[in-house]
Amino acid sequence: MKLLKKKITDEGIVISGEMLKVDSFLNHQIDPHLIDEIASAFLYRFEDTTFHKILTVESSGIAPAVMTGLKLGIPVLFAKKNRPSTMTEKRYSAPVHSFTKNSDTEISVSSEYIKKGDRILIIDDFLAHGSACRALIKIAEEAGAKVVAIGIVIEKGFQNGGRSLREDGYRVESLAIIDRMKEHNIGFRE
Amino acid sequence: MKLLKKKITDEGIVISGEMLKVDSFLNHQIDPHLIDEIASAFLYRFEDTTFHKILTVESSGIAPAVMTGLKLGIPVLFAKKNRPSTMTEKRYSAPVHSFTKNSDTEISVSSEYIKKGDRILIIDDFLAHGSACRALIKIAEEAGAKVVAIGIVIEKGFQNGGRSLREDGYRVESLAIIDRMKEHNIGFRE
Repeated sequence: MKLLKKKITDEGIVISGEMLKVDSFLNHQIDPHLIDEIASAFLYRFEDTTFHKILTVESSGIAPAVMTGLKLGIPVLFAKKNRPSTMTEKRYSAPVHSFTKNSDTEISVSSEYIKKGDRILIIDDFLAHGSACRALIKIAEEAGAKVVAIGIVIEKGFQNGGRSLREDGYRVESLAIIDRMKEHNIGFRE
Repeated sequence: MKLLKKKITDEGIVISGEMLKVDSFLNHQIDPHLIDEIASAFLYRFEDTTFHKILTVESSGIAPAVMTGLKLGIPVLFAKKNRPSTMTEKRYSAPVHSFTKNSDTEISVSSEYIKKGDRILIIDDFLAHGSACRALIKIAEEAGAKVVAIGIVIEKGFQNGGRSLREDGYRVESLAIIDRMKEHNIGFRE
């Protein structure tokens, strides 16, 4: 996706070789026009497929997930990082390991909103080691739902999350795959 | 806003008289069509006004803020609840008091994305005691920006946040104002 790659090239900041900061349009400030284009790109890739629901995780997955949900005409469910005081019912949960913080966070979803037989599209902003994605898959599968596809805005192709998911048979569609990055030099997979 | 009030009436769950759970369409599962209608309602109320940026707070503010940002053609900035490892620059922060949890959370915004003279539209999902809104105002004003208006999806009119903000001269536009609620009986302000 050309516009996204241009944004990453122009505004992305590489931190210590492994981290990409895109706070100007995705992770802190959000460019709604870009998100709309991202949703159109997902629609194009997934319009042949039937989904019942999008599953994402707070917070940066929400914007692309909701815009894509609008175009696909399906609801969005976001996993929560802390159990809110109003979530008293049964829930599915899984740990997400953060490699940058070297800590685990539990994410959870109410059993009210994910059911056996649901065809799920997972949407997330980043795919690196795949920890958040694996947690969402675990939650969906525990509920008896089927993860039909995974849509990622930015995949760090030099980390193993995407490869490992594809090897396990999941359909992963990433709008930009970064194969190498070093300061202001970001190389995308063709 | 008729569709929103119907959703609240049909799907909202009143917990212990003071908390309203709307997890089926706003705070956990999100109905993208409803969010699009919410954004249209904000556009209608604010189309006479010039804003440079929308300011919200993660997570449930993001969906209505981004959809409204798309319609108004302006970027969205969401305050973060935890300082991320990539946020190393100067930031503005303020505490948000949660009455349900009886604890404070600090929210913060990078000084990169909010500047002196910016005309700000604050968007949030709920307005109750006004603690999150006051924190966003403090952040904006510390940056030298001007809070021109505040757009709220659901205001709990029986708590004092909205009244107090209006008394202080802020323009607060709420799409649904609840004046009383008791189990399945939710009464809206006309």
